[in-house]
Amino acid sequence: MMRAKTEALLQQRQNAICDALTQIDGMPFREDSWTRAEGGFGRTRVLQHGTVFEKAGVSTSTVMGMLTKEAAKLAMGREVTFEGEHTPFFATSISLVIHPHNPMAPTAHMHYRYFELGTGANWIFSGSADLTPSYVFEEDAMHFHRVHKQACDRYNEAWYPRFKQACDAYFYLPHRGEHRGVGGIFLGNLSAEDGEQEMLFSLIRDCAGAFMDAYLPIIERRKAMPFSHEQKDWQRLRRGRYVEFNLVCDRGTAFGLKTGGRVESILMTLPLTAGWEYDYRPMPGSEEARMQEVLQTPRQWA
Amino acid sequence: MMRAKTEALLQQRQNAICDALTQIDGMPFREDSWTRAEGGFGRTRVLQHGTVFEKAGVSTSTVMGMLTKEAAKLAMGREVTFEGEHTPFFATSISLVIHPHNPMAPTAHMHYRYFELGTGANWIFSGSADLTPSYVFEEDAMHFHRVHKQACDRYNEAWYPRFKQACDAYFYLPHRGEHRGVGGIFLGNLSAEDGEQEMLFSLIRDCAGAFMDAYLPIIERRKAMPFSHEQKDWQRLRRGRYVEFNLVCDRGTAFGLKTGGRVESILMTLPLTAGWEYDYRPMPGSEEARMQEVLQTPRQWA
Repeated sequence: MMRAKTEALLQQRQNAICDALTQIDGMPFREDSWTRAEGGFGRTRVLQHGTVFEKAGVSTSTVMGMLTKEAAKLAMGREVTFEGEHTPFFATSISLVIHPHNPMAPTAHMHYRYFELGTGANWIFSGSADLTPSYVFEEDAMHFHRVHKQACDRYNEAWYPRFKQACDAYFYLPHRGEHRGVGGIFLGNLSAEDGEQEMLFSLIRDCAGAFMDAYLPIIERRKAMPFSHEQKDWQRLRRGRYVEFNLVCDRGTAFGLKTGGRVESILMTLPLTAGWEYDYRPMPGSEEARMQEVLQTPRQWA
Repeated sequence: MMRAKTEALLQQRQNAICDALTQIDGMPFREDSWTRAEGGFGRTRVLQHGTVFEKAGVSTSTVMGMLTKEAAKLAMGREVTFEGEHTPFFATSISLVIHPHNPMAPTAHMHYRYFELGTGANWIFSGSADLTPSYVFEEDAMHFHRVHKQACDRYNEAWYPRFKQACDAYFYLPHRGEHRGVGGIFLGNLSAEDGEQEMLFSLIRDCAGAFMDAYLPIIERRKAMPFSHEQKDWQRLRRGRYVEFNLVCDRGTAFGLKTGGRVESILMTLPLTAGWEYDYRPMPGSEEARMQEVLQTPRQWA
């Protein structure tokens, strides 16, 4: 049964990722388990003030209940029809955000989800993984994209280009004219129209499985690089933009806050330190200016 | 003519407030003048990395153009009728946010505005002033409220209680179950139903004029108080909440970002430093816990 199978997969990913991050950092994750009155439970794990990681949050949750037509449409990304006012839903997901201390080491985000409406005929897989550096290291962006491309190419070579473009489109701050980072993949809502359920499950499994291969080598080569106070200040401004994206642009965060989700789990994605400097402009030709150019004009990385 | 008169008043307030803040800090404001293609101009002034102030922004703007019925309704806070698709509008306003370095010194915000629809028959005055401390000093909150109450009482003794309650209601983070600070006044949309235009102009003049009397004595007594690293950390978390309010809850910020306002002027309100610690809970009985209680349960201060 797809519900239990996906839930088990995502929890197993949570365990493996937390183990790997703790091995790198030395600090264990704190775990908060919670239950939801309307049905469901979650496991929020956070490591903060670590050696390598300023803050890392890795959460899973499985929730169920009843949805109105409007909420069902929002969740599925298209019109849905059913009899009566409400329909049952089921959702199981994993979400993570990792903010390292070192400004040379990028922030990473990943989210995968299985969603079912009614008694199982209506389902979608969705998710995304993206990388947000403060400084451009071409080899890091290329590696992150390449590993995710390989996971997708096994199933359909048309997918990575589509997911890459959707990622650039989604992680975008219109008021800044800037993308959040160097992108990655954004799966949209994959349904029966996109393929067999088993095949899409395998795709999600492989994409979620690819995350550690995509991200950990980058952390290993950046975590101990020397950096200056000025570079740390620039990272703080970049984290301000991360906060702007999550609070102003991200549909998931807005939905969670409005529908009374567990606030600390929703906002575990926000960094320990962020800042806003009035009208800051990097010096032309600087590494900071190079980062900004990449954020304004997405590149092909794989 | 009310347009020119209010514009002159608010610019004069901007000058006086900037002069007073520079006198306290020692650092001058940087000024950016801008114009708007559709009509209008602004004067954004920011002081950052000062001696006393981490960041202070004091802006005025006068904008005009055409509005749809929907936008006009939003701006006026009620249904409006006019012939055709669009109607002319005029708006002149002052906005300020002051974030001091010292965690014992509160953040302050003030905004006043005159808005006109059509050829002048439809107008409103609006505005607010509120105080956001990281630590509770009863005398500061009482002083800030008392000075604003005095300004309102001259016109109508029913107003301060109404504006105080509206302020508590507006500066509220529903997802946190917390108010932004210790409040102040929030004037709502004052129109011909609330009194003569000249009288409401005088009210706005006196409220805007009261700001320095309300805030500067507080800054003077808090700016050099000793504080610990832990208290500075707590201030950073409180500033995170300030960012949450401005980016998630504030109607003005959302409206400005969506309608293509000057981003740096809109977001000059965000602090140089902010942060989010997962599930931070102040120690019971601590000064931080006392602050939190006050934010959860607004008090009568005047």
